[in-house]
Amino acid sequence: MTNRQSTQVTTDRVTAALLIIGDEILSGRTRDANLGYLATWLNDHGIELREARVVPDVAKVIIESLNSLRVTYDYVFTTGGIGPTHDDITVDCVAEAFGVPIHYNAEAEAQLMAMLTGPMNDGRRRMTRVPEGGTLIRNPLSGAPGVAIGNVFVLAGIPKVMQVMLEDLRDRLRSGRKVLSAAVHVFAGESRMAATLRRVQDNYPDVAIGSYPFGTRERFGASLVLRSVDGERLGAAVDDLRAALILDGLEVHDGEAPQEAAG
Amino acid sequence: MTNRQSTQVTTDRVTAALLIIGDEILSGRTRDANLGYLATWLNDHGIELREARVVPDVAKVIIESLNSLRVTYDYVFTTGGIGPTHDDITVDCVAEAFGVPIHYNAEAEAQLMAMLTGPMNDGRRRMTRVPEGGTLIRNPLSGAPGVAIGNVFVLAGIPKVMQVMLEDLRDRLRSGRKVLSAAVHVFAGESRMAATLRRVQDNYPDVAIGSYPFGTRERFGASLVLRSVDGERLGAAVDDLRAALILDGLEVHDGEAPQEAAG
Repeated sequence: MTNRQSTQVTTDRVTAALLIIGDEILSGRTRDANLGYLATWLNDHGIELREARVVPDVAKVIIESLNSLRVTYDYVFTTGGIGPTHDDITVDCVAEAFGVPIHYNAEAEAQLMAMLTGPMNDGRRRMTRVPEGGTLIRNPLSGAPGVAIGNVFVLAGIPKVMQVMLEDLRDRLRSGRKVLSAAVHVFAGESRMAATLRRVQDNYPDVAIGSYPFGTRERFGASLVLRSVDGERLGAAVDDLRAALILDGLEVHDGEAPQEAAG
Repeated sequence: MTNRQSTQVTTDRVTAALLIIGDEILSGRTRDANLGYLATWLNDHGIELREARVVPDVAKVIIESLNSLRVTYDYVFTTGGIGPTHDDITVDCVAEAFGVPIHYNAEAEAQLMAMLTGPMNDGRRRMTRVPEGGTLIRNPLSGAPGVAIGNVFVLAGIPKVMQVMLEDLRDRLRSGRKVLSAAVHVFAGESRMAATLRRVQDNYPDVAIGSYPFGTRERFGASLVLRSVDGERLGAAVDDLRAALILDGLEVHDGEAPQEAAG
């Protein structure tokens, strides 16, 4: 990302949640591929993904989750449930959550039909409905647009479509401070570094330190990931942590993470 | 799964939620591998996974999510945050959610030390703490046990460890009716089958029908997945749907799904 408009950048932290809608994720049939992509994309834009929920195609659950998340976080993104079939109920749920009616939208129809062959039909028309007060999110890949309303952004579930829709949001989202991260990798059991980790964490409450084990029984250790919006504090915490671990007699590496065991 | 004890099987539906705990999932650094495995495992046991949440290593959020989920679903499973380091706070949060103190547990220590070399230390001791009223979930892979308390099951985040812990729960969970599923694959755009799908769905409110697009621009279609606890109704819905789609002039296939586009 280059040349961000400086007027967009604030010193605030901007938070977001993701609501993944779809029986197929909860049944284990389909593996979600959107959370990781969105997390990385948002962080590049100075927005922190703070929660994700996966819910079934059940209106009551979707509406309650939307209303809980949209008052808690600055932005809510949804994925899934915006196709032409009866199980695509996301837009209806968003309208109900906001308490507004839904209308067929001429611009949405124009964008959809520009990408399709064949006639308009009920299924396709279903994809042109927009809750009152909503605006479109362009989908140059397959036409059917997403919807933005309030602080909620309704995206497709198909990863490639979700990704092109995000590009249309590039200049429509407020940016906060970007979370910076650094990692050191230590070839030792986590329990041998736990005390030092805690001490450094206590000295740097503004730097989040996570420990993620990797490896096999023969050659194992943990990647220590440090994250902060303050680059100077991050650098100081990394230096302190590395020095303390070496003083403990542990083998510390920078650079790429060894193969991880964790999830 | 074979030879279930018939005393365990009821005609109820039994529901579950998964709480995935870890900054590394929300930052996009690590991709969750537990949701799909747990969903499939639970369904084999007659338990429906109805919601999943991903939350950061923040006590307030973990506790609120736990308390929300454990009153809504029959079972709650957590993954992550049970290692020896300062960022492993899941057990503390579970104790606080239940309003009980935590104690060091001699049996947990015995199970842990049986798998380890080297002395007990503070980090290792941290992994032997159990909220009052909790029982252990065995971990034959690396020793440190999980914890069961009330309807909450605290599992490891590392997939292989999570999976062996589940085996210890095999006879400790109530079983409901298993959700059966069947799929037909149609080579046509979803919008061409939407009306028929809706009609069949209306005739079978006890069968959930989902539509999942697949393919490329040249050769595309949708997999229609039908799910129900009633095998007869499921079979009838599949037959009706297949017949109606063929009557619509569409190309219908059974068997394995074509390559999918969806998420």
